[in-house]
Amino acid sequence: MTHSSIQNNPTTDPFAGGISEFAQRLRNGDMTAISATDYCLSRIKHYNDRLGAFVYVDEAGARATAHAIDALLDNGTDLGPLMGVPIGIKDLFAVVGMPVTNGSLHPTADLSGTEGTIVKRLKQAGAIVLGKTATVEFALGATGINEACGTPWNPHDATEPRIPGGSSSGSAVATAAGMCAFALGTDTGGSVRIPACMNALTGHKTTHGRWPVDGVFPLSPTLDSIGPICRSVEDARLIHQAMMREVVPATAPLRALTFGIPTGYFFDELDEDVRHTFDQAVSLLGEAGVQFVDIALPEAVERETLFPAIVPAELLSTLTVDGFHSAKASMDSVTRARAEAGLGLEAVDYLIARKRQAALVPLIQQRLTAVDAWVAPTCPFTPMTLASLQDPAMAARSLQASRNTQPGNLFGECSVSLPIGHLGATLPTGFQLSCAPGQDARLLSIANAVQQCIGQPPLPNLSGFDSTA
Amino acid sequence: MTHSSIQNNPTTDPFAGGISEFAQRLRNGDMTAISATDYCLSRIKHYNDRLGAFVYVDEAGARATAHAIDALLDNGTDLGPLMGVPIGIKDLFAVVGMPVTNGSLHPTADLSGTEGTIVKRLKQAGAIVLGKTATVEFALGATGINEACGTPWNPHDATEPRIPGGSSSGSAVATAAGMCAFALGTDTGGSVRIPACMNALTGHKTTHGRWPVDGVFPLSPTLDSIGPICRSVEDARLIHQAMMREVVPATAPLRALTFGIPTGYFFDELDEDVRHTFDQAVSLLGEAGVQFVDIALPEAVERETLFPAIVPAELLSTLTVDGFHSAKASMDSVTRARAEAGLGLEAVDYLIARKRQAALVPLIQQRLTAVDAWVAPTCPFTPMTLASLQDPAMAARSLQASRNTQPGNLFGECSVSLPIGHLGATLPTGFQLSCAPGQDARLLSIANAVQQCIGQPPLPNLSGFDSTA
Repeated sequence: MTHSSIQNNPTTDPFAGGISEFAQRLRNGDMTAISATDYCLSRIKHYNDRLGAFVYVDEAGARATAHAIDALLDNGTDLGPLMGVPIGIKDLFAVVGMPVTNGSLHPTADLSGTEGTIVKRLKQAGAIVLGKTATVEFALGATGINEACGTPWNPHDATEPRIPGGSSSGSAVATAAGMCAFALGTDTGGSVRIPACMNALTGHKTTHGRWPVDGVFPLSPTLDSIGPICRSVEDARLIHQAMMREVVPATAPLRALTFGIPTGYFFDELDEDVRHTFDQAVSLLGEAGVQFVDIALPEAVERETLFPAIVPAELLSTLTVDGFHSAKASMDSVTRARAEAGLGLEAVDYLIARKRQAALVPLIQQRLTAVDAWVAPTCPFTPMTLASLQDPAMAARSLQASRNTQPGNLFGECSVSLPIGHLGATLPTGFQLSCAPGQDARLLSIANAVQQCIGQPPLPNLSGFDSTA
Repeated sequence: MTHSSIQNNPTTDPFAGGISEFAQRLRNGDMTAISATDYCLSRIKHYNDRLGAFVYVDEAGARATAHAIDALLDNGTDLGPLMGVPIGIKDLFAVVGMPVTNGSLHPTADLSGTEGTIVKRLKQAGAIVLGKTATVEFALGATGINEACGTPWNPHDATEPRIPGGSSSGSAVATAAGMCAFALGTDTGGSVRIPACMNALTGHKTTHGRWPVDGVFPLSPTLDSIGPICRSVEDARLIHQAMMREVVPATAPLRALTFGIPTGYFFDELDEDVRHTFDQAVSLLGEAGVQFVDIALPEAVERETLFPAIVPAELLSTLTVDGFHSAKASMDSVTRARAEAGLGLEAVDYLIARKRQAALVPLIQQRLTAVDAWVAPTCPFTPMTLASLQDPAMAARSLQASRNTQPGNLFGECSVSLPIGHLGATLPTGFQLSCAPGQDARLLSIANAVQQCIGQPPLPNLSGFDSTA
């Protein structure tokens, strides 16, 4: 086996054919873990200065692990499809030997705890942790802006900075920039799906409670979930199988499927490109045999009252009130304002909101019994420029980034966001597909069939971002 | 088979030898379900007017069920050791066809939901539900006093009314009065153990989360647990086996056991009879080979801050704030004041209290690794007269009824209270034995050995209470 050509030519993307093809090539000797790791480290070296996706990189540790992984495989130990796959981890997760900032200048590493189940399982599956990716402060924000620690640049426009989506901003930008095969994110109100959407990637928000969240900064234990931002549903499927040891059928027959489209709310005030590409996706799926029916989800609007009644108080209880007052001078202004709003909230109002949220879960499942999944645009708009947010109307609109995703957290569902900007938009747009709680395997089979039908765009060209050129 | 002698002579207590002996006699034809039921109904008829233990009795339903149970057994269907056993259910549980008041004049039946798992399992095991037993309003109080709906009379003193203990006051008085074989109670801060103690009975507070609490008015889902008030640990053991389908060894060897005795707090300001009988019990157990060691449980005092930060807000969220304001005019004054204190509580303080309580569970288990169980007096005092509570100092003291029991709820433990007043007190006193969360089977084996060692008193003589005499 010789891998010199790959090691000397890190411009050959080892994941161009997905994790599955990489796994084959690793095993037939065309690829090694160290070559894939070096490719990713090279991408980070070239582009991270401008993109700001990674906030910490452990080059030596990643390379040493990659060599060990190669030695394991050479000597007959196969850890499965994620073996030798370099990944990024949102800087809200504890990882042994790496710092954790939770996107804050205020020290809160102890609040994330010690390395948790999912990071351990990824390592046990042979994934190679390159480092930590940027996050909105305490994951409390959907645009991706972090005034305190820096906002990653959306790689889909080299001419001016656009919002990368959040809160798992760095995980999406790193994956879109080919700095890793995929990256872990968290999703309390859309923080996996929105950055996936804004970066033309696939994001899997797992069912609340399905993937263990130990070792992750608790923003809102009631609504927190985690999941990968990756290049395709097929990759998400392999990752879910590896994390949960659950068999996920590769695909589902589109002709047998019925998708619900909620009337109203999710379709209010959409950017024209969002509406157009969503209609295109529905049209393509309809031609492929999917049935679409109108469904009513009038409870979606309750996100406007339930999120403010649940999330800020839970964040404050993580920080403690004294901790919040110590942190607030250095905090991102949006995060600070949202957290501060939790200070006056009464316990009984919090608990009544919790009860209502818990009641929504079975109620929505009842509403969805006639459909296999329901669909909506992931985000009402395409990534706006940071400059445009000086306009108060645009700033207000940017806060609607999670309008279409928060209901899924309230309903306890699992969701996937697929890229559909290639169906006729200049910038990324997303197609959100959601299933009932616990139906992650079914969701991924369906989403895979959908992605095979509507196709997906290539990763963005980064020639405008090379800081070493 | 003829049972005419029993049916005509309801003064023969079918449960004098416990559930186990009743079960044998039922199967060998000495006893029938209808005779046991008629005995209990006769006791209710004679004594309930004065004692106020039952607030609702379904005589026709109980007798019809008893006949059906007898027919089942006669025809070869054996439902196990609880078959044909007449029971009372605290009026905080939903039971099909029976009203539920939750001890309140304000209508709250819908808040208890529909008949839950444990009531269903009791019925499936052949127990016969006689009716509903009195409770403190919304189960929020440990003396047993209910100004709104009436306070049961403690049957251990016919000369003047003494507190029956609460909140499962009626369940304890009904069992002590032989109106049922045992009765279901709830325990959020001691409401099974305290009335068991005050009525010289055995109460089993199950581990939080072990016995399902669906179909029970939620006072505080964080701390609520349920369990039986019964005549002996052996009865509690049979009941736990039937409810959980878990084998509970009949006894544990005392010579192999080490019990912790907490230093301080639990032993402050005890009534002399309480201290004396506790010391007697420890002495008897020591002679039988039990090792006693001092343990530190300094976190017990946190009940004083954590209960007010958790329970009132959770009750208010069950009632809703509007519901509380509608109910409060007719509410018991102590219950109202406690609930009202939850109105100003901030969500973040509630959540921090929840975190602290959750942290106490493993912390206390760590403290108890060197002992098999820990012991303390169940209640600091013997049942005081209602008249004495006109004295503000005595009224204040009465509110300490749950001082020694609330820590067990905070720690997530299982506990048994055993009667020990017969070791040298005029009125009932109790011996509380507690084990780590989930160790209910172990606890019951140990408590059975303890009860066999120290003995137990007979049920009180009710001759002074007969309203039909």
